[in-house]
Amino acid sequence: MKTLGYYDGQIGELEDMKVPMLDRACYFGDGIYDATYSRNKKIFALDEHIDRFYRGLEKVDIKLDMTKEQLKGLLLSLVKKVDEDELFVYWQATRGEGLREHCYENMTAKLWVMLKPQSIVDMSQKIRLVTHEDIRYTLCDIKTLNLLPNVLFSQYAKSKNAHECILHRGDRVTECAHSNIHILKDNVLITPPTDCFILKGVAREHLINACKALGICVDIRPFSLDEMMNSDEVILTSSGSLCLQVESIDGKEVGGKSNNTIKLLQEYLLGEFRSNTEYEG
Amino acid sequence: MKTLGYYDGQIGELEDMKVPMLDRACYFGDGIYDATYSRNKKIFALDEHIDRFYRGLEKVDIKLDMTKEQLKGLLLSLVKKVDEDELFVYWQATRGEGLREHCYENMTAKLWVMLKPQSIVDMSQKIRLVTHEDIRYTLCDIKTLNLLPNVLFSQYAKSKNAHECILHRGDRVTECAHSNIHILKDNVLITPPTDCFILKGVAREHLINACKALGICVDIRPFSLDEMMNSDEVILTSSGSLCLQVESIDGKEVGGKSNNTIKLLQEYLLGEFRSNTEYEG
Repeated sequence: MKTLGYYDGQIGELEDMKVPMLDRACYFGDGIYDATYSRNKKIFALDEHIDRFYRGLEKVDIKLDMTKEQLKGLLLSLVKKVDEDELFVYWQATRGEGLREHCYENMTAKLWVMLKPQSIVDMSQKIRLVTHEDIRYTLCDIKTLNLLPNVLFSQYAKSKNAHECILHRGDRVTECAHSNIHILKDNVLITPPTDCFILKGVAREHLINACKALGICVDIRPFSLDEMMNSDEVILTSSGSLCLQVESIDGKEVGGKSNNTIKLLQEYLLGEFRSNTEYEG
Repeated sequence: MKTLGYYDGQIGELEDMKVPMLDRACYFGDGIYDATYSRNKKIFALDEHIDRFYRGLEKVDIKLDMTKEQLKGLLLSLVKKVDEDELFVYWQATRGEGLREHCYENMTAKLWVMLKPQSIVDMSQKIRLVTHEDIRYTLCDIKTLNLLPNVLFSQYAKSKNAHECILHRGDRVTECAHSNIHILKDNVLITPPTDCFILKGVAREHLINACKALGICVDIRPFSLDEMMNSDEVILTSSGSLCLQVESIDGKEVGGKSNNTIKLLQEYLLGEFRSNTEYEG
């Protein structure tokens, strides 16, 4: 197979897959997702993504009739069915099927999986960002299917010839449309605390651990737009990009003052990704 | 047919209908909906709902290849296929189908319709409400498919044996999980202005017009939780309920001081609904 879609036990190429119109994803976005990458049939940081996924399900009261071990086993078995070495591995659970009513009772959650060929991005590129007021809800600490604002922010960035959109609540920088954001100043990594405005990104955790391993201090606290513009480096992390150096924000040059630290972090993180997804015959 | 589902030209009973897994509704909630009720094969306030629907589509840059007249004609023709006199008439347009990428380009929007037997609710019942901080995004003036917070609020109300959940941003009352809210004080209807926190409900507009027709002054301004608790009446409006009298909020009795005004408004609004959906042989 070239891609793979899974819905509640059924499997097919993504473009052939159909799902019930009455699944609550279709009209409420009533579900939780997570995603990571696989290489050589190994799924990177799977335990961390699975743990976060189940925390999200619990927070919105979706009861998936599957243990973490069963879900891991299923994802690993599905990855093996696709004839590509590097995949984007996405899954979601929705509350279930039924006529459209906001309230629910005795629903059977549905598991969806989507696999498509995709590699993590080339970290040697520097990226351009734009900023926008963060107008989202305060459930940003969980990965729900309510992503229309994130779609609009991403498209806004694209319309400005940028790669991603930095969100801020007033002066406080939160995160990006689909990445976490951090700054380096005087060789200290400053990253916002993960409250209801910010997702606890798995790549963010890996960046923090990389800093610790490399002797770079980490300061977990909010930072402002001004502080970001005047930092030594602005860094983006996500499961698909690991650690990207930012070259401009809203058309103004930023960063470029700690190139060596960026390089060390990128090498560390890429090494970790590669060693954990090595071919094992 | 007992129910009807429509997706991009295909029709069937709702529970049999399937949609592509790659429709962006399924993983981003990337769409806009609207809904009203039909009786005797006539759809109530259809022009107003259709106008609001297209305003929503424009706001999120979804281009549906169908004129308002075509959509109206389609909805009326679908309503005729269902063997029930009173229906909940729901439709949505999603941005289109594709592999999961936040950004979009050249997509073909998809129209969905869902019809199910349902009558507007009996207005003689008084209802119980609860309150909750409004944690939603600031796109509340459009009807997007990002409704997980509304689901959680509705379920919270149900868990407290209440019918609906009043939302407030700090002290300011905004709206309910799926209704607008208003108060009566000294025979003046006070209703919040419809900004990015509040949907411009069609039933709300009809209530305002009913007040004008009945000589009740209307004051469009925000009101506080305190003001609401001390008002003469608390009123809920939605397309399915027209105008409901509230008897308690968070377990405390409210309203009941302008029963006659409530009755006049309910009779006016029900009369309007009935005369506009009368049987025509």
